[in-house]
Amino acid sequence: MNEKRRPPIVGRYMQEEVALATRNSGMPLEALRYDVTPAGLHYLLIHFDIPEADAATWKLRVEGLVARPLELGLGELRRMRAKTLRVTLECAGNGRGQVSPRYPSMPWLEEGVSTAEWTGVPLSAVLNEARPGESVREIVFHGADRGFDRGIEHSYSRSLRLAEAMHEDVLLAYDMNGAPLLPQHGAPLRLLVPRWYGMASVKWLQRIEAIDRAFDGVQQALSYHFRAAAGDPGIPCTRMRVNALMVPPGIPEFFGRRRTVEAGEVEILGRAWSGDGEVKRVQFSADGAWQDAALEAPVAPHAWQRWSARWQAARGVHELRCRATDATGAIQPLEPPWDVAGFGNNSVQRVEVLVR
Amino acid sequence: MNEKRRPPIVGRYMQEEVALATRNSGMPLEALRYDVTPAGLHYLLIHFDIPEADAATWKLRVEGLVARPLELGLGELRRMRAKTLRVTLECAGNGRGQVSPRYPSMPWLEEGVSTAEWTGVPLSAVLNEARPGESVREIVFHGADRGFDRGIEHSYSRSLRLAEAMHEDVLLAYDMNGAPLLPQHGAPLRLLVPRWYGMASVKWLQRIEAIDRAFDGVQQALSYHFRAAAGDPGIPCTRMRVNALMVPPGIPEFFGRRRTVEAGEVEILGRAWSGDGEVKRVQFSADGAWQDAALEAPVAPHAWQRWSARWQAARGVHELRCRATDATGAIQPLEPPWDVAGFGNNSVQRVEVLVR
Repeated sequence: MNEKRRPPIVGRYMQEEVALATRNSGMPLEALRYDVTPAGLHYLLIHFDIPEADAATWKLRVEGLVARPLELGLGELRRMRAKTLRVTLECAGNGRGQVSPRYPSMPWLEEGVSTAEWTGVPLSAVLNEARPGESVREIVFHGADRGFDRGIEHSYSRSLRLAEAMHEDVLLAYDMNGAPLLPQHGAPLRLLVPRWYGMASVKWLQRIEAIDRAFDGVQQALSYHFRAAAGDPGIPCTRMRVNALMVPPGIPEFFGRRRTVEAGEVEILGRAWSGDGEVKRVQFSADGAWQDAALEAPVAPHAWQRWSARWQAARGVHELRCRATDATGAIQPLEPPWDVAGFGNNSVQRVEVLVR
Repeated sequence: MNEKRRPPIVGRYMQEEVALATRNSGMPLEALRYDVTPAGLHYLLIHFDIPEADAATWKLRVEGLVARPLELGLGELRRMRAKTLRVTLECAGNGRGQVSPRYPSMPWLEEGVSTAEWTGVPLSAVLNEARPGESVREIVFHGADRGFDRGIEHSYSRSLRLAEAMHEDVLLAYDMNGAPLLPQHGAPLRLLVPRWYGMASVKWLQRIEAIDRAFDGVQQALSYHFRAAAGDPGIPCTRMRVNALMVPPGIPEFFGRRRTVEAGEVEILGRAWSGDGEVKRVQFSADGAWQDAALEAPVAPHAWQRWSARWQAARGVHELRCRATDATGAIQPLEPPWDVAGFGNNSVQRVEVLVR
């Protein structure tokens, strides 16, 4: 297939979509019960291949418009003052598989979100050592993973504006949940940008470059934009939109995943998050009427919040939904917001349940 | 959807298939480079939900037709003599997504295989303590995961004939790659049946039952049979058929995954395995002509074998294939063997490559 412009898809899924869904990993929704997602259950979106990397010889170069270019090994980074942050990451394409017509890419339904504890060096500490020049506008992050997208060969690279890059919680992370990064999560070093969709947190980070213009790489300028139509200039994807999910209650069917629940009082458990601030309200509904869920205060500024609701389950088929509102007043839409590439679909989750 | 009989699928994939592909996990093929698959990259096929389990209170019951029923905690099992085995597991449905018409289930293309080091107690040691009676024919293994399949509610359960269960390498495993089992791999305790397709290695193992008949559970008597047509009595899936895979060379496109390789000599690396004995030969071909690959001797009796081949890559589009033969003389077929449910598709891998 010529990848320069991939035609939109209606209805059933292409084998290429299934191949991406099998290679990549969603977080099974029952894992919403963990405050911190265990190793191997954190969602994964890997654009190209997982690179071979040796932590013993890995070097991070810091270059471009800086007074003092640096080359840092993992040992040097580990000797710097470390910071550990609990951070919820979500793929910008989460929910894409529910949008029609559908952009040919990873067909996430709703499982592209997880939370981990990341340890590393604040990027600002390294940038302060390198001393970006007066003219610097953006900091570019180059990963070791390389391939083709939209017909263009490139290494996976993304940028942040200098002020965004200097935020105290942007990390050069080398540990995840207290252990060295796993190969698939960017070992031995990755960027971690709290509150942003996952595409900003460049894995297998090899090179940091200070530039005096807007970065025009494929993953920055072409992909990861909200666009009403192909060819629109678009608006860059940045922070995660307000969103919430519940653990589907009861037991599933193997194939269709429809849930069966015993009649009576059922405790519904979920998580809610927003890149724009604290979640202030979560509502739950069975068959349409919204009730306020019990929402816990944030345990960490960049991590999802736990919520729960009690439901009196009566026999029959029901549709459960949940809906979060964040500190800016943003509330999840009932239907997928339109986007050509299926980015930012934070429409409410719907769970069909048979109560017996 | 009524799950009692799911109609076969032709052509594009259903959303239910995509949901299973996203929940479950394939091993990205570049991870064939690891002798032992790292945590979180091992393939996963989870029929129902990952159960909540507490290792501190988990009990394994051994009951049925035994002289001495047992109830064992993890501490007791860990104090028994342990054994560590390197074992390759493959899903019996691996390759299903390439078969047409296609059975509605997990649409594996080729990534449902991995290798890990499992530590646990030989099942035979526990059975010898429990002392199965003279009439015992099968040992049944009951997991804690519960749901519906083929319209029937059940816990995931499988059986082995007594002689198979007593094999010295069948383990009650509690560690994987030197660490306690992760939740998704059956924590805190699972069965591990080397050489068999993965369905035999029951996760979240709660109960072992000695019976004097053939077990008739859904996952034993209805599913996991080779059948030429729906309704056939069928032949049970047991040991893994001979199979081989290569790491796709070069760099990929994001969506179509087609590979681009530089012209010149290319080293191709892969793995081959069979549940029926040592792999004796691996052949590699570019565009049709088979050449013998260099095949390494087994490093462990139940683990895949490494192979490699050198390829003189000339400009243009090429199709790479690999093909293994095991000690019984079984050789991989060029086209998928027909099976209603898509089990045991060990047809040769095909990798399209553009050389530039």
